[in-house]
Amino acid sequence: MMQVNPERFLADLHRLRAFGAAGVGRGVVRPAFSEADLAARTWLAGEMRAAGLAVHVDPVGNLFGLAEGRSILLGSHTDSQPEGGWLDGALGVIAALEIARAAQDAGGPPVSVVSFQDEEGRFGVTTGSAIWAGMLALDDADRQTDRDGVSFAEARAAIAGEAGEFVDPGQFSGFIEMHIEQGPWLYEAGEAVGVVTDIVGIRDMRITLEGEQNHAGTTPMHRRRDAFQGLARFNALLNERLAGVVTPQTVWTIGHVRLHPDAHSIVPGRATFSMQWRDGDAGRLARMEEIIRDTAAEVAREMGLGLSFGDLLGLEPMPTDARLREALCGAAEAVAPGRWRQMPSGALHDATNVARLMPSAMLFVPSIDGISHAFAEDTAEADLVVGLEVLAGAVARLG
Amino acid sequence: MMQVNPERFLADLHRLRAFGAAGVGRGVVRPAFSEADLAARTWLAGEMRAAGLAVHVDPVGNLFGLAEGRSILLGSHTDSQPEGGWLDGALGVIAALEIARAAQDAGGPPVSVVSFQDEEGRFGVTTGSAIWAGMLALDDADRQTDRDGVSFAEARAAIAGEAGEFVDPGQFSGFIEMHIEQGPWLYEAGEAVGVVTDIVGIRDMRITLEGEQNHAGTTPMHRRRDAFQGLARFNALLNERLAGVVTPQTVWTIGHVRLHPDAHSIVPGRATFSMQWRDGDAGRLARMEEIIRDTAAEVAREMGLGLSFGDLLGLEPMPTDARLREALCGAAEAVAPGRWRQMPSGALHDATNVARLMPSAMLFVPSIDGISHAFAEDTAEADLVVGLEVLAGAVARLG
Repeated sequence: MMQVNPERFLADLHRLRAFGAAGVGRGVVRPAFSEADLAARTWLAGEMRAAGLAVHVDPVGNLFGLAEGRSILLGSHTDSQPEGGWLDGALGVIAALEIARAAQDAGGPPVSVVSFQDEEGRFGVTTGSAIWAGMLALDDADRQTDRDGVSFAEARAAIAGEAGEFVDPGQFSGFIEMHIEQGPWLYEAGEAVGVVTDIVGIRDMRITLEGEQNHAGTTPMHRRRDAFQGLARFNALLNERLAGVVTPQTVWTIGHVRLHPDAHSIVPGRATFSMQWRDGDAGRLARMEEIIRDTAAEVAREMGLGLSFGDLLGLEPMPTDARLREALCGAAEAVAPGRWRQMPSGALHDATNVARLMPSAMLFVPSIDGISHAFAEDTAEADLVVGLEVLAGAVARLG
Repeated sequence: MMQVNPERFLADLHRLRAFGAAGVGRGVVRPAFSEADLAARTWLAGEMRAAGLAVHVDPVGNLFGLAEGRSILLGSHTDSQPEGGWLDGALGVIAALEIARAAQDAGGPPVSVVSFQDEEGRFGVTTGSAIWAGMLALDDADRQTDRDGVSFAEARAAIAGEAGEFVDPGQFSGFIEMHIEQGPWLYEAGEAVGVVTDIVGIRDMRITLEGEQNHAGTTPMHRRRDAFQGLARFNALLNERLAGVVTPQTVWTIGHVRLHPDAHSIVPGRATFSMQWRDGDAGRLARMEEIIRDTAAEVAREMGLGLSFGDLLGLEPMPTDARLREALCGAAEAVAPGRWRQMPSGALHDATNVARLMPSAMLFVPSIDGISHAFAEDTAEADLVVGLEVLAGAVARLG
């Protein structure tokens, strides 16, 4: 009978946190291929080896600890947002490591571990798992650049010396990713575990409004074609119009705004901004896209602005595997009776990609106040341990 | 009788344009202390010398061509916006040069020429003339930095070798600045000249709204404290509320916006933006400030956002000198009968500062479509010449 060690698991989480510790709460700065990220992976590879796993790095930096023969794959990612928390990704990897050790000690079942690279999107979106799953061509990924103009090709050159081939997914019976919820639902309900039913779909594009750059002192209000005012008007109309279409789980965000020339004394001639929306239903995502495009066109027409849309990026909603989900539900009820639920995932995860390769599932633990992608991200350590035990229980059930 | 040479004047304007020519229309990139700016000033100093003027550079880079004895000072600035036009500032300096030459040829009256430094605010606002007029301490100016972190002290070190003392303003009987209108009023009315009655006052501050940075996929809409949504709401309410207070000449602008962390997948935790407003009436400026502060406070309260205001920067509305203005009106009626008007200036100019030192006035020529602070800025050459002749006429009248 497999026996996980909660103290060892928590100690390892804190050890991983030291790589790129932000010095603010338990915050972490460990973007893909940064010095802290590479150091963390070297440490993790050592722990995998100590757990009796064969360490393998693929060409894009995904780090595997492989059990012999056919195994179940557990894991997530260890890279962070530019300002991230200590658990986002890290939790799933360290839980996987602990369960692999426990399985090794117990003589089975075979458990492999993975830390995917660039899940947080320094170069793209879930880059490492997307390439492995064939959803993103390596050539295309290589051309993607970060904010400073560094390409993915340049970044991954740092690990070329230790990299082997891509791992054959045929050796895995399935994939389970444990993760913090990153939303408030479990925390607010006082529940310990969420078994994920679907990962919501995501749509993302840039929108540009072109007005007329002009002097902010001498251009009368009635003569202005102010691109920022266009953005503000679009935002207000959109919020009104989406209200009739969305559910409480639907979200939409303008997270990035760039004005040109972005000066106090100049009427903005251009506003470029991000528009991202997420929902579990592909039909609703399409209906929202229509409203977004129509509203932007209407504002542009009314205010005399030029309008252009960037490429629409996105991932379809993905249901999790029924057999894996049942094992998680059974383990959750055994470990935390009445304190768990089934729920959708509002965030995109590596599991979205891995589901193309093998049966995949996810479980969540609560996020305090629903906070993540921020230094303040945290989870009660007791809840982390419950999550670990549920995951271990599911692996045991799956044999 | 003083006789200006329109061909020579236009040729010099085009020669100056070659320093930092943007390659887009007649656009110019010649920010203060850039290579192009310093080269333009070297050329201008040579032209001043050829016109019989004594060249003098002061410690902050203001370039004077001084006539002997007591003289009238004409001029403006030759630095440009990061993306500027060929006439903004340059026109007033080259007109001054041409009139100084004509006066020299005619044996009087004595005319001095100035090109102020950093009017366009790479480091501040009308930096060179503000320091000369005692409105900005040199120590404070030296600490101001541009967007790349270069300080004014570092920039002006480039001219330390040629710089002398500050010029004694007591030698000047007054200052007249000729400038493009930078607004649409003259152009729309088909008029050739505007004699400025007042320069409007200006208020400028940064406002910061602090929300909660969070994951854009997992944070439900009702739980968000989105700083960008706060900015959009503030903007909408403000536009409504100012409507009852403003005149057709009043303007207000949000020209700069910075979100943090400014990422597609993150609910903005902070929005910092510029709020600038201008009007000819100090009471109205104060009333607008009250509405701005109250509206921001209300939005912050309603949306659960933190709020902070930066320093309020500003300049008071300034009436021009009656005697100089009368000379300009007389000359305008003589040169362009029925095709001129008296009007306020919506833009800030060096004359706002120089008015602290001596009687000061301004005249405008039309801006095509009201465009300035952009490569597309332009004025019909015939209108430039009318402006030159009005300014020369006023100088002759003042004797």
